[in-house]
Amino acid sequence: MRIVVLAGGIGGARFLRGLMSAAPDADITVIGNTGDDIHLFGLKVCPDLDTVMYTLGGGIHEEQGWGRPDETFTVKEELAAYGVGPEWFGLGDRDFATHIVRTQMIGAGYPLSAVTEALCARWQPGVRLLPMTDDRVETHVLIDDPDGEGRKAVHFQEYWVRLRASVPAHAVVPVGADQAKPAPGVLEAIADADVVLFPPSNPVVSVGTILAVPGVREAIADAGVPVVGLSPIVGDAPVRGMADKVLAAVGVESTAAAVAKHYGSGLLDGWLVDTVDAGTVGEVEAAGIRCRAIPLMMTDLKATVAMAAEALALAEEVRG
Amino acid sequence: MRIVVLAGGIGGARFLRGLMSAAPDADITVIGNTGDDIHLFGLKVCPDLDTVMYTLGGGIHEEQGWGRPDETFTVKEELAAYGVGPEWFGLGDRDFATHIVRTQMIGAGYPLSAVTEALCARWQPGVRLLPMTDDRVETHVLIDDPDGEGRKAVHFQEYWVRLRASVPAHAVVPVGADQAKPAPGVLEAIADADVVLFPPSNPVVSVGTILAVPGVREAIADAGVPVVGLSPIVGDAPVRGMADKVLAAVGVESTAAAVAKHYGSGLLDGWLVDTVDAGTVGEVEAAGIRCRAIPLMMTDLKATVAMAAEALALAEEVRG
Repeated sequence: MRIVVLAGGIGGARFLRGLMSAAPDADITVIGNTGDDIHLFGLKVCPDLDTVMYTLGGGIHEEQGWGRPDETFTVKEELAAYGVGPEWFGLGDRDFATHIVRTQMIGAGYPLSAVTEALCARWQPGVRLLPMTDDRVETHVLIDDPDGEGRKAVHFQEYWVRLRASVPAHAVVPVGADQAKPAPGVLEAIADADVVLFPPSNPVVSVGTILAVPGVREAIADAGVPVVGLSPIVGDAPVRGMADKVLAAVGVESTAAAVAKHYGSGLLDGWLVDTVDAGTVGEVEAAGIRCRAIPLMMTDLKATVAMAAEALALAEEVRG
Repeated sequence: MRIVVLAGGIGGARFLRGLMSAAPDADITVIGNTGDDIHLFGLKVCPDLDTVMYTLGGGIHEEQGWGRPDETFTVKEELAAYGVGPEWFGLGDRDFATHIVRTQMIGAGYPLSAVTEALCARWQPGVRLLPMTDDRVETHVLIDDPDGEGRKAVHFQEYWVRLRASVPAHAVVPVGADQAKPAPGVLEAIADADVVLFPPSNPVVSVGTILAVPGVREAIADAGVPVVGLSPIVGDAPVRGMADKVLAAVGVESTAAAVAKHYGSGLLDGWLVDTVDAGTVGEVEAAGIRCRAIPLMMTDLKATVAMAAEALALAEEVRG
């Protein structure tokens, strides 16, 4: 079975670990969000791709969900001693090496997809990890200008990490997405897929950004295979992260049903909501999307495997 | 008193420390060798400039003579885990930060001289540290090709650090030097100097490379001020490093007198040799260069201060 997964960072990576256990023989292609990539200290940092790579490759800081375990921060401290920031982005010494290798390869002319493949040669994540695009896409968030009357756009990482999403987001713009081309292999993987899954990743800044790359949404809709998603919202709150903040920016309620309808029945065939949201199953199904309520908390690998298995079962159900 | 010093790495840096104590009120401009600069991991590394900066700024690994103290090597180990080398060049985590800042600034369009000034804002070396040029100059060494019949040119660092100068050097070529322009301030500092000093640095790959930048040798000769050097050769051997190997490549004997004559009386007014080489004083003076024999081992700061004081005294003597 060929499975394509559109993944953001921590939620996507953890779901993938469950999926690989639920379908050990599946051929899994991960299309990773690169809209939260950022240049720091002259180095290209790809937080979502790295989180997937480290998580599936056994190199993730498990409790934290991102970055490497047993990190030291010597390089960052020395950069700060030079007055060079930002200090709000956590880059450990081990992690720095990844960005140095990536930046060196990009400087040598390799596209991000080739660089990602080279990095994965070390990590052996067990999936094929593709960036959504080799082109530069940067998710910006429109906020009130703290220094003035108007509004200003800040890089997603500044909004998310530095400001902790503590100020209202008026708009979320994947700058450059409209000119981006899907990375080599992305459209082919979708066309060849037997099922497409949306993990409980952020529907706006993770899955939404991937879908904003021209051709990706259309390829999924045209693939003629089941497309099943898992709600990142449980009850009225995101399972983790701050998805509610950016959902508000795109005018979508923070409910499992609203997110399903935001994706829409033109894209989504099946949707899993948490048991606490069982009452919304009817609303989702009325929108033309098959829906089941199951436990959606990725508390451990066993729970995550069960979620992935339910997603695959729902895919078979809608395949009919 | 305005003093200009042409400096390589360890020898130059240690001499400078002595000079600053010997002439605490002097205005010292250091013209640093950049011919041994190298790009590693996509980062611009300037070993000689950094050795001067760290040494005078209190950030040097004292025993080693280069690099930072209390170093860790996490980044380098991680790069090796990606299969990315070279492993033979010692870059610690603290040191990496310097190269990251430098590379970021150069990528942003700043010339090396401006970058060096910015780095020195942290280290406060107490001298004005100028790279010899903002242009790219790379010292290459011609060796027998270990894989074939012919010869091949390798980067100086590969010859010096990886091969430990263990193979014959047939030629030393400062690639790019003939097209390089002195960095801003270099010619002005020389023209304004009251004395120019050559520390006991490598006469071929350190001082020689600086002199290879068009205009520098002429500016020193035209300055009309005393130019005094200290022999890096004591007895028949370099005080440290492997200067004898590269002297052979340029056809110069490894003796204090031969190095003096290599610089020549058109450039050099005074020359200090070690007391063990007192017998060569006459030979140097016969070549038109005032010469004194004094202890030349920089065993501690006191000995180094005495050397610097003798160099300044000899400068006054030749000034007449």
